[in-house]
Amino acid sequence: MPLKTQGNHAVSVATGGKKAVVLASGGIDSTTCMAIAKAEGFSVCSLHVNYHQRHKMELEAAREVDRVMGVRTSLILEVPLDRIGGSALTSTLEVPKGGGLNGAAIPITYVPARNTVLLSLALAWAEVLEAEDIFIGVNALDYSGYPDCRPAYIESFQQMANLALKATVEGRLNIRIRTPLIQMSKKEIILMGLNLGVDYSLTLSCYDPAPGGLACGECDSCIIRKKGFREAGISDPTRYS
Amino acid sequence: MPLKTQGNHAVSVATGGKKAVVLASGGIDSTTCMAIAKAEGFSVCSLHVNYHQRHKMELEAAREVDRVMGVRTSLILEVPLDRIGGSALTSTLEVPKGGGLNGAAIPITYVPARNTVLLSLALAWAEVLEAEDIFIGVNALDYSGYPDCRPAYIESFQQMANLALKATVEGRLNIRIRTPLIQMSKKEIILMGLNLGVDYSLTLSCYDPAPGGLACGECDSCIIRKKGFREAGISDPTRYS
Repeated sequence: MPLKTQGNHAVSVATGGKKAVVLASGGIDSTTCMAIAKAEGFSVCSLHVNYHQRHKMELEAAREVDRVMGVRTSLILEVPLDRIGGSALTSTLEVPKGGGLNGAAIPITYVPARNTVLLSLALAWAEVLEAEDIFIGVNALDYSGYPDCRPAYIESFQQMANLALKATVEGRLNIRIRTPLIQMSKKEIILMGLNLGVDYSLTLSCYDPAPGGLACGECDSCIIRKKGFREAGISDPTRYS
Repeated sequence: MPLKTQGNHAVSVATGGKKAVVLASGGIDSTTCMAIAKAEGFSVCSLHVNYHQRHKMELEAAREVDRVMGVRTSLILEVPLDRIGGSALTSTLEVPKGGGLNGAAIPITYVPARNTVLLSLALAWAEVLEAEDIFIGVNALDYSGYPDCRPAYIESFQQMANLALKATVEGRLNIRIRTPLIQMSKKEIILMGLNLGVDYSLTLSCYDPAPGGLACGECDSCIIRKKGFREAGISDPTRYS
């Protein structure tokens, strides 16, 4: 696969319209991942998982991103993780506001095994699509609380994935879990996305948005987003309540 | 954990009503797994995943098994793997009949990443329940076609699982993927289950049952089941059409 250089990031170029599955939530990270996959020449197949997070606006944002970015293959799967529980994102537990990101504890917005469930579904779809690349917008730097956002976890998932499938065992596919943002700051992610033409006004980051998609401005996710735009020196296109 | 020996199988005894998640499909293997978990002293939490397999009778059998075996904690999750496709078990592709099990190819009843999806959901629930043991009735011996039934895959999943969770990273849980049947023949599984008091007339193995839960007798799963009872010298309690 030929390589071209884009800013500081080596970008490999997929040839012949190769497919990639992109886990797309409508937020900054997954939307930037999608732009990177497109820039690498992949035909993007976007997977939206409705895991009964508190708000459905996330999925609406994800669909709008698909439309604007010209994604032709997308799949919405409903997986009721709220029935399993254990998270403020899928239950009636209150989403914490007002920061405290740098504490040692993993916040209660953690969803048990969420990325493992999301990547497993992406893996199943990748086999059917014959896609080798699965993009997920995890980030270990700005927000290191979640265990399933760390490189060691991702590497281990990839190893398991290549033992799991008919297509990998038969040597027809070699699954790569692609995490282009894993070591980037939110500022760097935003600058890269803008460079690739991403319209961040389409994206929604808030854990607890008000009706109409207005971000709260106070949850961990809003705080990280605001800080990212501020540090990038870019006007924040988010509509806050 | 103390050990006692049951037949040829070392059985560890869980103390203090420790919980185990058992992936329960209502078939011979998962029902035997459940009996093993109970014999080890675990409080069984049974997870039924409705992945839109062709027939819902499997789930009815699983619920009946729960009832008879006194399972008090169970969860049914609906995960529409049919929307991903790629399998005769979740689509309108015809289920093959009449054997051919010893061929080299993985049969079309393979469901892409099925065990990875099932184990991921079990993992999420295990974290919420604070259960360390996840039982899955995979078997590599009698039916070696499926890649996600092999020991190498299971070991890799377990490794990934212990990197994935808040509770494992914080040192509060050590996940064990328990596959007590992985190297047993169907004959051995049936004999062990009978020894543990399993009523196999409750279980359903058929990939393509007729209305009323009558097994076809001709799909791969029926053929393996019939062979198992024959070799065990046990009268087969299955109702065939």
